[in-house]
Amino acid sequence: MNYRMLGYLFGIIMLIEAALMTLPSIVSLIFGESPVPFLITIAILVALSLPLAWRKPGDMRIYAKEGFVASAGAWILLSLFGALPFVFSGAIPNYIDAIFETVSGFTTTGASILQEIESLPKGILFWRSFTHWVGGMGVLVFMLAILPADNGQAMHLLRAEVPGPTKDKIVPKMRQTALILYGIYMCLTLILIFLLLLTKMPLYDSIVNAFATAGTGGFSVRNASIGAYNNPAAEWIIGIFMLVFGINFNIYFLLLVKRFKDVFKNEELRVFLIICLLATAAITLNTIDYFSSTGDAVRTAFFQVSTIVSTTGFATVNFDLWPSFSKTIMLFLMILGSCAGSTAGGLKISRVIIAVKNMFRSIKKTVRPRSVNVVRLDGEALPEATLHVTANYLSIYFALIVAVTLFLSIDGFDLETNLSATLACINNIGPGFSVVGPTGNFSGFSYFSKLLLSFSMLAGRLEFMPLLILFSPNTWKRN
Amino acid sequence: MNYRMLGYLFGIIMLIEAALMTLPSIVSLIFGESPVPFLITIAILVALSLPLAWRKPGDMRIYAKEGFVASAGAWILLSLFGALPFVFSGAIPNYIDAIFETVSGFTTTGASILQEIESLPKGILFWRSFTHWVGGMGVLVFMLAILPADNGQAMHLLRAEVPGPTKDKIVPKMRQTALILYGIYMCLTLILIFLLLLTKMPLYDSIVNAFATAGTGGFSVRNASIGAYNNPAAEWIIGIFMLVFGINFNIYFLLLVKRFKDVFKNEELRVFLIICLLATAAITLNTIDYFSSTGDAVRTAFFQVSTIVSTTGFATVNFDLWPSFSKTIMLFLMILGSCAGSTAGGLKISRVIIAVKNMFRSIKKTVRPRSVNVVRLDGEALPEATLHVTANYLSIYFALIVAVTLFLSIDGFDLETNLSATLACINNIGPGFSVVGPTGNFSGFSYFSKLLLSFSMLAGRLEFMPLLILFSPNTWKRN
Repeated sequence: MNYRMLGYLFGIIMLIEAALMTLPSIVSLIFGESPVPFLITIAILVALSLPLAWRKPGDMRIYAKEGFVASAGAWILLSLFGALPFVFSGAIPNYIDAIFETVSGFTTTGASILQEIESLPKGILFWRSFTHWVGGMGVLVFMLAILPADNGQAMHLLRAEVPGPTKDKIVPKMRQTALILYGIYMCLTLILIFLLLLTKMPLYDSIVNAFATAGTGGFSVRNASIGAYNNPAAEWIIGIFMLVFGINFNIYFLLLVKRFKDVFKNEELRVFLIICLLATAAITLNTIDYFSSTGDAVRTAFFQVSTIVSTTGFATVNFDLWPSFSKTIMLFLMILGSCAGSTAGGLKISRVIIAVKNMFRSIKKTVRPRSVNVVRLDGEALPEATLHVTANYLSIYFALIVAVTLFLSIDGFDLETNLSATLACINNIGPGFSVVGPTGNFSGFSYFSKLLLSFSMLAGRLEFMPLLILFSPNTWKRN
Repeated sequence: MNYRMLGYLFGIIMLIEAALMTLPSIVSLIFGESPVPFLITIAILVALSLPLAWRKPGDMRIYAKEGFVASAGAWILLSLFGALPFVFSGAIPNYIDAIFETVSGFTTTGASILQEIESLPKGILFWRSFTHWVGGMGVLVFMLAILPADNGQAMHLLRAEVPGPTKDKIVPKMRQTALILYGIYMCLTLILIFLLLLTKMPLYDSIVNAFATAGTGGFSVRNASIGAYNNPAAEWIIGIFMLVFGINFNIYFLLLVKRFKDVFKNEELRVFLIICLLATAAITLNTIDYFSSTGDAVRTAFFQVSTIVSTTGFATVNFDLWPSFSKTIMLFLMILGSCAGSTAGGLKISRVIIAVKNMFRSIKKTVRPRSVNVVRLDGEALPEATLHVTANYLSIYFALIVAVTLFLSIDGFDLETNLSATLACINNIGPGFSVVGPTGNFSGFSYFSKLLLSFSMLAGRLEFMPLLILFSPNTWKRN
C-alpha cells in the first residue's frame, strides 16, 4: 500500500472540499446569514490538508487496491468534514445525525433525518443540495478533470467511482474523459435551471432543485418536496430530467459526436425507456381513481416512476397510500435503478440485463449441455469474467440487504420500514415505505442504525468493493 | 426427446400413485368413511396408465433433458390426479383449490386453503398428510428404489429431484442409493411415530404428524396445528425431528457405516446446527417477556426456528405477533432453508456457504488481482462450474420472487402478505406473515394467484430447472 500517495490524494480531496464550501459561504452572505460555520470548516480542512498535499510523493504509483482504498477514504473524509457546517450552524446539533445527512447528500441518496426543513438557513440548505451535485458525478472524477495524472492510475480511480458493470472510457485519455463527463453534467444542469426559471420557480429554488435532480439525490428545500410548488410544468420538467440524469453519460457524448447508430444499438437505454413507459402506464391505470383528471394521474405516475427508478427520491404524492400493485412496482423499480455510468443508484439496468441473459443461457445449457453460448450486450460478446463479477455483485447486494435489515430490526420498527429503509439507502434512493415513506423520515432510528445506514449509502454509491476491502486483512498486509 | 420412454415413465408414476392411494382407502374403511373417492381415482389412474406402462419401449435411453422433463411431468401428474379425492369427497369442492392443496402436500410446503380442518374425513386428512411423506423423499427416488434401471439414466432422474448443489451418490449403484435413502427415511419415521405415541398422542395423530414432520411439510389435522395438543414433550420431539429431517441423508448413511470423520468434516452440518442454536438463543432473549417461564420461551423459540428453518411450517404460536427482530430472523431463516439432500426446502445451507465463500474470494481477488484462489467445501476444491451454477441459481431464485410477488399484488393484499406468501411457497415452508401468517391461510387469493403459487411450490421443490425448461423452445426442438 502506497500510504504517501494516499495521503497526498486525501490532501487534494480535502482542499477541493474547502474550495467547494466557498459557494455556500457566498450564498450565506447574499441572504444575510452568517458564513462562519463554513469558514471554520474551510480553515480546518486547509490546515489539515496542507501538510498532506504540500509535496508530491516520489512514488506516485497506485494499483487497483490503492484505487479502491482512495475512493472509500475520499468519500468518508468528505462526509466527516462536510457534516461540520450543519453542527457549527446548529441546523443539525448532533454530529451523527449530521454525518447521516451529509453521507445521504454526497451519495445522492436524499434520505433525511430532518423533520422541519423550511426554517433552516438558506446557506446550509444550499450546501445540503450542493453535496448531491458534487456526489452525483463523483469527486474523484472531478479531481481527474482538474489534475494531470497518469492514465493507468486515473483508470484505477475512475473504476472505483463510476457505477456500472462496464466502464468505457469515452476517449483514450482519462483526463479528457473526466472533463467531458463534467462538461456534459454542467451543461445539462444549466439547461435544467433555465427551464425551471421559465416555470416561474424562484432562482434559489431552481438552482438547489436542479442540483438534487442532476445528482439524482432528492433533497428538497420544502417540507412537501416538489409537491409544495403546485407547479405541473416544473413536475414534468423535473420528471423528464431525472430520467435524463439516469441515462449513461456516454450516450450524450455519442450524440454530441453524432454517432447515432451506437445510441440506437444501446440495449440498456432501450430497456430503461421501455421499463419507464410500462411502469408509468401500469401505475396510471392502477391509480386513476385517486385523481380528478387523467392528466394529473399520468403526470403523477410518471413523476413517481421517474423519481424512484432514477433513485432521486423527490415526492409529489404519498405513494405509500397507493394500492398494493403500484407499491410493488415501485419496490422493484427501487431495486432496479437506472443505467450504468449515470448519477443514479440501484442495481443498474445493464447488470440486470446481464443476469437475466445469463439465466436464459443456463436454462439453454441444461437442455443442450454441449452447446456453446456467449452472452451478448449491444451485440458484443461479454467476457465470462464480467458474468461472474455480475453474479457475485448480486450475492453481495442481497447479503448486505439481509445483514442491514436484521440489525435495523433491533430498533423495533415494522418489517416494511426496515426492509425499505435498507433498500432506500443501499440503492441511494431516499424514501422507502411506512415510517420512512415519502412523508416520513429517518430521525426515529437509533444512532447505531444511522451509522449503519450511512455505511450502506456509501457502500451502495461506491458499489460495495471499495468499502468492503477496507475490512479485508489482505488489503493491509505487506506485499 | 424420447416421448415413448417419457410416456412409459409417466405410466409407472401413475401406477405408483394408484398403489399409494390404497392406504388412505383402508384408513377410510377403518374410520367407517366411504373409500369411494379414492377407489374412483385409483380406477382412473389405472385405466390411463396401463396403455402407457404396458410395454417397455425399445429405446430406453434418457438424457439430462428427458430427466428434467420426466421429473416436472411426474410431479404435475401426481398433483393433478392426487387432487381428485378431495373433489370427489366434497372436502375441497373446487378443483383449483384441490390442486393448490395437493401441490402444497407433495412439495412438502404445507400452505393450505382450508379454514376448517378438524371436520374433514380422517381418510382424506390421512391422504393429505401422506402426500408430504411421499413428496419429501421424492417419487422418482421411490421409483428408482423399486425398479431396475440403467445407472446413467437413473442419475439423470435423481439429479432432477434431489435438492442441493452437489448430488453425491451414497454407493456407486443408483438403485441401491435410492433404497438406502428410503430405508433411512422409513426407519426415522417409525422411530418418530413410536416416540410420539410415548407422549400419549393418539395413534392416528402420531402417524399423520410424523408424515408431515418427516417430509418437513407441515399439514396438521388440527386447526391450531401442533399447538392444539398442549403437549410440551411432543413439541420437543417434533422440534428435534424437523431438524433431523433437515439434515443431508448422506450423514445418516455415514453414521451407519461408522465414517464419523466424514461427518465431522461436513461444513454444511456444522453451519446448520450453529445457525439453529444462535437463532434459538436470539429469539428466546427477544421474546422471553411473552412467556411465563424460561422453559416455555426456549421450547417455543426452538420449535419456531426448527419449523421455519426446516421449512416444515407447523405452528405452536402466532409468531406474526412477535417483535420485529425475531420476525426478521424468521424471515431470513425462511430463505435460508436446511441442508442439501434433505427433505427440506429453501436456498439450502450449502448453496449459501458457496455463495458467501465466492463473495470473499471476489473481495480477495480485487485486492490481489493475480492471486489464484479456489473455493473449498468440506476441504475439497469446488469446480468453477459449481460456483457459476450456484450464482445463477440465486439469480433465478430472486427473479422468480420478484415476478410472483408482482402478480400476487394484483389481488390487493399488503406487501408483507404477498412477499411472504411468495417466499413461503417457493421455499416450500407453508405459513408466511400477515394474511398468510401461522393463524391465517391462502384461501383469499384469486384462482390465478393460487395456480401461480402452485407453480412456485413445484418450481421450488424441483429447484427451478425442471419446470423452467418446460418453457424453453430448445426443449421441444428436434435434435
